[in-house]
Amino acid sequence: MLSIEKYQEEFVQFLEEYTIVKEPKGLYEPIDYILNLGGKRLRPVLTLMTAHIFSSDYKKALNAALSIEVFHNFSLVHDDIMDDAPLRRGQETVHEKWDINTGILSGDAMLIMAYQLFESYEADVFQALAKLFSKTALEVCEGQQYDIDFETRNDVTIAEYLKMIEYKTAVLVGAAMNMGAIVAGASEKDQQGIYDFGRYLGIAFQLQDDYLDAFGDPKTFGKQVGGDIIENKKTYLYLKALEFSEASEKTALETLFTSTPDDATSKIERAKGIFRASGSAEATKSAILEYTNKAFEVLEGLNITEDKKDLLKEFGSNLMNRTV
Amino acid sequence: MLSIEKYQEEFVQFLEEYTIVKEPKGLYEPIDYILNLGGKRLRPVLTLMTAHIFSSDYKKALNAALSIEVFHNFSLVHDDIMDDAPLRRGQETVHEKWDINTGILSGDAMLIMAYQLFESYEADVFQALAKLFSKTALEVCEGQQYDIDFETRNDVTIAEYLKMIEYKTAVLVGAAMNMGAIVAGASEKDQQGIYDFGRYLGIAFQLQDDYLDAFGDPKTFGKQVGGDIIENKKTYLYLKALEFSEASEKTALETLFTSTPDDATSKIERAKGIFRASGSAEATKSAILEYTNKAFEVLEGLNITEDKKDLLKEFGSNLMNRTV
Repeated sequence: MLSIEKYQEEFVQFLEEYTIVKEPKGLYEPIDYILNLGGKRLRPVLTLMTAHIFSSDYKKALNAALSIEVFHNFSLVHDDIMDDAPLRRGQETVHEKWDINTGILSGDAMLIMAYQLFESYEADVFQALAKLFSKTALEVCEGQQYDIDFETRNDVTIAEYLKMIEYKTAVLVGAAMNMGAIVAGASEKDQQGIYDFGRYLGIAFQLQDDYLDAFGDPKTFGKQVGGDIIENKKTYLYLKALEFSEASEKTALETLFTSTPDDATSKIERAKGIFRASGSAEATKSAILEYTNKAFEVLEGLNITEDKKDLLKEFGSNLMNRTV
Repeated sequence: MLSIEKYQEEFVQFLEEYTIVKEPKGLYEPIDYILNLGGKRLRPVLTLMTAHIFSSDYKKALNAALSIEVFHNFSLVHDDIMDDAPLRRGQETVHEKWDINTGILSGDAMLIMAYQLFESYEADVFQALAKLFSKTALEVCEGQQYDIDFETRNDVTIAEYLKMIEYKTAVLVGAAMNMGAIVAGASEKDQQGIYDFGRYLGIAFQLQDDYLDAFGDPKTFGKQVGGDIIENKKTYLYLKALEFSEASEKTALETLFTSTPDDATSKIERAKGIFRASGSAEATKSAILEYTNKAFEVLEGLNITEDKKDLLKEFGSNLMNRTV
């Protein structure tokens, strides 16, 4: 096994060879742009790492890893249009730098290119990858739709919220690892296990994102602290606070989450106060731990050495102890 | 072999069973809506017909035929957003009936669903279908990008225009037929032949669309006659007229195609006059015939009975003698 940085390096090198801008430039330049904006390359690293766990030839998984990254960036381009987001990783979003039509069309091309990246594999591996990919990609779309639906709903349950983040975020983490296992020829049982590991870790990761958005260190957290509160987003913190509140507190919180003050400083402080006092902040930390532990429990059933289980645990722990 | 109407009927019945609206409704209702707006179902009928030419079990091709139709409708949904089109087949477009975000996301889901429809086939057939599909879908995106690029360019050549309509329209007709041949187990040579037949026919079809847009019968032509002239579209008629014109006439035509009068009646008449007088109208008719004949010539090399060749010729002839 290699270090995370080494897999990242290998992946970025492979990506650089892939992103040669073809004609028509209006279609392919935005694709080159978004793919080279950087980022942690978390998903493709997980694909390579998982392939390496089940086989020595982890490089065979580079095309699958790239497919996952191209799909992830496709979803960013289209989501950024839908969210009207001006910035992505500190740079202009595609539809800002070009226009909405470019964002739509270049995104479409990326979704197709993600499938094309499976073409180097043999027919049975190709079909297994493409089937998992389609199922996952459709779930990501469904998750995005639930996220949109929740904006205008006042009766979102915790179970619905968990399903939404599972679909929108976590299944892709599971699929990234599952693809590494498919390429490496792992058993069906191990494939399912590593998928579940990634999926639980993905849920924990998103819950932690919710937590850090309110309680993260402004110095190290990549995004604006309190961003979700400013945008009145119904995160796990918010929904748990509602659940734990008496009628009058509940109404106060709901009212707070309809306001859009020019200076959000005191709104953010008030929301954080409620999240702490209601027990929601602690409950969120517990839920993060719960899903991280679910992920670790799945590892027990995998047919791999203890060394490798420890490595995956370490990876999960590092991810969950992040401050960014 | 069956009649065109019979294939249509079979297809529409299959489509009806497929379009059961799932959750989240916000994602799947627009998909159900656009797929049931009607239309000639030209592409899926070609898939079924081609499968029947090479095998008795044409029903095996229903999933591939549906994939082509779902993809075609995906491209309509996204193109209508890009073109800001209010109507499609006389009904509201998806982004008009819902909103742009719905159009983007439901379209994305349709592109994925088109791939999923190949999952009922065995691994080698699946891979062959998905590869052809990806290549074709990416070309359709490239064709759309060229079309967008041409709007702001004044030096578009006839060769470039032909490439654009080949990518944007014709390759999908070729792929629809090729998929029928793949499912039916036709030889590589016959697959290539039927693809070229469809592709040439698709080019002829689009050139005829250009011609009918100006010279079609308002009573039978589905769209507004003169629509391309109103929108200053650089069609084959326009580009050929420029090619055939002296410098001063050329400038006059170019100037005419920058104007946007409230009442376009006299603009349309003037443009049609130039198309006729320059010889462009006749040249377009010749080009339609040329590509139709190219399609028919390809048929000669196919390993099928003369009866079946005649049937395909009849289909092509009917398509080219259409007034709608």
